[in-house]
Amino acid sequence: MTTIKGIGASSGIALAKAYKLEMPDLTVTRDTVADPAAEVESFREHKAAVEQEILKIKEKASKNLSEEEAAVFDAHIQMLNDPELGGQVEAKIQDEKLNAAAALEDVATMFITMFSSMEDAYFKERAADVKDVSTRLKAHLLGKKLPDPSSIDEEVVIIANDLTPSDTSQLDKNLVKGFATNIGGRTSHSAILARSMEIPAVVATNTILDETKDGDFIVLDGDTGDVIINPDEATIAEFEKKKKEYDEYKAELKTLVDAESVSTDGKKTLLVANIGSPNDLEAVKANGAEGVGLFRTEFLYMENDDLPTEEQQFEVYKEVLENVNGPVVVRTLDIGGDKKLPALPLPEEMNPFLGVRAIRLCLQRKDIFRVQLRALLRASVYGELHIMFPMIATLGEFREAKGVLMEEKEKLIAEGVKVADKIEVGIMIEIPAAAVLADQFAKEVDFFSIGTNDLIQYTFAADRMSSTINYLYQPFNPAIIRLVKNVIEASHKEGKWTGMCGEMAGEAKAAPLLLGLGLDEFSMSATSILAQRKRIRGLSYEECKTLANKCADECATMEEVVDLVSESTGL
Amino acid sequence: MTTIKGIGASSGIALAKAYKLEMPDLTVTRDTVADPAAEVESFREHKAAVEQEILKIKEKASKNLSEEEAAVFDAHIQMLNDPELGGQVEAKIQDEKLNAAAALEDVATMFITMFSSMEDAYFKERAADVKDVSTRLKAHLLGKKLPDPSSIDEEVVIIANDLTPSDTSQLDKNLVKGFATNIGGRTSHSAILARSMEIPAVVATNTILDETKDGDFIVLDGDTGDVIINPDEATIAEFEKKKKEYDEYKAELKTLVDAESVSTDGKKTLLVANIGSPNDLEAVKANGAEGVGLFRTEFLYMENDDLPTEEQQFEVYKEVLENVNGPVVVRTLDIGGDKKLPALPLPEEMNPFLGVRAIRLCLQRKDIFRVQLRALLRASVYGELHIMFPMIATLGEFREAKGVLMEEKEKLIAEGVKVADKIEVGIMIEIPAAAVLADQFAKEVDFFSIGTNDLIQYTFAADRMSSTINYLYQPFNPAIIRLVKNVIEASHKEGKWTGMCGEMAGEAKAAPLLLGLGLDEFSMSATSILAQRKRIRGLSYEECKTLANKCADECATMEEVVDLVSESTGL
Repeated sequence: MTTIKGIGASSGIALAKAYKLEMPDLTVTRDTVADPAAEVESFREHKAAVEQEILKIKEKASKNLSEEEAAVFDAHIQMLNDPELGGQVEAKIQDEKLNAAAALEDVATMFITMFSSMEDAYFKERAADVKDVSTRLKAHLLGKKLPDPSSIDEEVVIIANDLTPSDTSQLDKNLVKGFATNIGGRTSHSAILARSMEIPAVVATNTILDETKDGDFIVLDGDTGDVIINPDEATIAEFEKKKKEYDEYKAELKTLVDAESVSTDGKKTLLVANIGSPNDLEAVKANGAEGVGLFRTEFLYMENDDLPTEEQQFEVYKEVLENVNGPVVVRTLDIGGDKKLPALPLPEEMNPFLGVRAIRLCLQRKDIFRVQLRALLRASVYGELHIMFPMIATLGEFREAKGVLMEEKEKLIAEGVKVADKIEVGIMIEIPAAAVLADQFAKEVDFFSIGTNDLIQYTFAADRMSSTINYLYQPFNPAIIRLVKNVIEASHKEGKWTGMCGEMAGEAKAAPLLLGLGLDEFSMSATSILAQRKRIRGLSYEECKTLANKCADECATMEEVVDLVSESTGL
Repeated sequence: MTTIKGIGASSGIALAKAYKLEMPDLTVTRDTVADPAAEVESFREHKAAVEQEILKIKEKASKNLSEEEAAVFDAHIQMLNDPELGGQVEAKIQDEKLNAAAALEDVATMFITMFSSMEDAYFKERAADVKDVSTRLKAHLLGKKLPDPSSIDEEVVIIANDLTPSDTSQLDKNLVKGFATNIGGRTSHSAILARSMEIPAVVATNTILDETKDGDFIVLDGDTGDVIINPDEATIAEFEKKKKEYDEYKAELKTLVDAESVSTDGKKTLLVANIGSPNDLEAVKANGAEGVGLFRTEFLYMENDDLPTEEQQFEVYKEVLENVNGPVVVRTLDIGGDKKLPALPLPEEMNPFLGVRAIRLCLQRKDIFRVQLRALLRASVYGELHIMFPMIATLGEFREAKGVLMEEKEKLIAEGVKVADKIEVGIMIEIPAAAVLADQFAKEVDFFSIGTNDLIQYTFAADRMSSTINYLYQPFNPAIIRLVKNVIEASHKEGKWTGMCGEMAGEAKAAPLLLGLGLDEFSMSATSILAQRKRIRGLSYEECKTLANKCADECATMEEVVDLVSESTGL
């Protein structure tokens, strides 16, 4: 029995035989080919064969995957047929008389290095795609067989160095009970997919692949990060008990899909979902979200080389509004900072997180802003639309942004287009200045939504992407509790409401604090909603109020807050 | 009569004849030389001649300049004799048979581009040095005469495209009554030097060099940025009157050198100076500073390729403490962000202002931190030392930093070294989290000093170096007034004091607000002290208190605050 510690990446307990997903040796030798034209021909044939293979995998996988997830395979096929990549490989074969596998390796390495060195996530993902596709093609050229997770026909725990996007999406949820990898992190692609597929997963174990043999019995705990190889009877019994408890807990959560998000003493809150595209609507329903608290609209802008038209946007907003039973808070374009657009190159900045982002950019580029606002206004008749401006620092900015919205509304009405009578217009509270001055903002906005990820980053002046200073990402620091309290109180004084759409809204320990501070709406990943609803349904608002005020008024450090919450609520 | 509008860069009125400081045409033709060895020889002779010329300029200039200012010429000579630069020019002459002037231009351009592309100020200054020196050398090689401001022998206003560091330092304060340039900004090198030499200056006029002929009569106003060429009698009379008033105002300020910084109703404050090195001590005395509110220690670390030793630091701290009659607040090393050290290369960060800076770095590199703390502790017996930690975000950081200080103190005492009994230990308030939680900090620190430059930057999440969003640098936004108020009140409740060492402390409109909020200590550039003292001596604390509270409680925007202050005080 060997216990290995990794990072829990997706909740749940798995018990099953190990299935090692191991790469064959794909070392390439550099050869000179006598007939480059024939080598090019063979390269093209292998490419065509790989395209067929990917299509087959896509077909098998598509029953487990959402449309968006399955789209990764289309991206792979597109990459495979990319004329730039293929052209460069063929040129190398012809000019240098190099064998196809070596030429491919050279070109792919260059592309991967180039994409990886770019700072934004979009291009980093392209590097993963090139790697995935070129590995598959290289294996073909070398006559090696890649592991085929789609051939699994019994219950297993997958053991791998890492899982590629295409590996993960081939996993059959009914057979793959969990997975454990050597590398990765909580936010790596495979971890995210594991959570959305609800497969228990442990990543970053460093050694699991070496220490496991095919057929070993594995138990793993996706919360603690423990993986045990060939456990003894007692351990198996212990984990079976844990699994039973977890399954019961999950089953209980499922009963809460239609339940109210209400405290034991009758304080009602709204538990709503963050979504990134209409593809997420299914999860919104399945997890009993009472609306959408944050609809990020960036995907519309990131998909294409051109900016989305008013019509394209209108269709998407309409689809979301028609399919959500409850309020839908749409955040206007939040680009800049670490998020870049292919269609809108922005100047490099020394500190992009302190630069021309979100509403700042929209106020500079009102042409782009107006298109989005018109699409939103036109869609407003199809549901309960709320419009939210991100990164507001001053009242001047809010007034200017709202002014543009009102202009477009009047124009549309003059054009005879129907626009909803009541559209709430609010702001994200993610800049300290706005949190401090919330009472003044509350006189003019319809609602607030606190974006904790950025608010914490700016309040502590600490880049949340920087691993060196991640100790300063302190959602439970009393300074944050005070700012949140100030915002909520300011909104209530003016008869307005406050939501929260940062990660904090879904955290266990935040439930009593936010309930106690009087937060009206909690917006989070759909998969976090039922667990948070269960917590809120077990808490007393009056007790939480006392607790939250004590944290705000008396605690000096994050540790004190966390301890006080644990002592008082057991969370 | 022609009026041109520029940016006022240094206060005061000047009336005098124009003296155009214009560059000769230094266009270089690329020639092939028959005898490269002779060309190298000639290059070396010109270099030696230029060295003599710089030494002569330095001698003439040194009577107007502080030691530090004159040191720019040593840097130029060092650059001139830099083996890398000279070696590359000679290699070009020899390998490419290129004429010396063209070879020099190529190499200098490369160095300038390289230094300019580096982000931090240290290297950007090196680019200016290379440009200055290589231009002088190129002129020599081309047989052209550079303008010689040291030959001026009558009262003039200098008209130029821009002034190089060496131009500016050759100006004789008794003859040069002012200057106006086409380019530059309020923070360009020549603007800063003009203010320290108290020569009225206008920069960024765009066209002044074209519109002026030598001998034209010029009047300029270094506050409004107005420059008038060949003014009529009435205008001359008007400016003479203004000049008289300004001179009287300056003379009045001089009478306040030993005066108290006290309001009309007897509220005492302390007006102290920001300094960057012992070279600034003369200005501290001349301007009646009641102490030093911010001694930036970075210069010690930036001067050399090696980190400064304990002994080197001790000598400097001792010198400052012995020469200041009043408290001296020393800020521990504030490096990182935009400030880099030759001796301590730091990893590149995506958002350096939100990265590993100041105390964050010192807590990671306690070896470096301890050396500074020991030097400070040893120097503490020579004056009234206060130690201040920059960029504190959490109480945990303060406790850790103070813990290291106490360890070193105990070690020194154990070694038999004398350390002052009472050393106040405080923190900069420049991160919103610390401003919000000031009441908790006030229980443990001895004092606060509010660093408004960074506090504003983080509170608005807007890079203060970015010209695109400089509208968000809002010292008078009610959010800032509230945070400042919160910090001051929190400190007073615990019997502690609060200072301010950001630019805001010296601003006219800030005087009534900060006085009214109860700020105990205003720290600013020495040259701003007397004007701020005059303002405070004209204000009623009780009236300012009412004003400041109204701004904090009732104003919604910066514009409202500014208007209210203007209406109430005329400032």
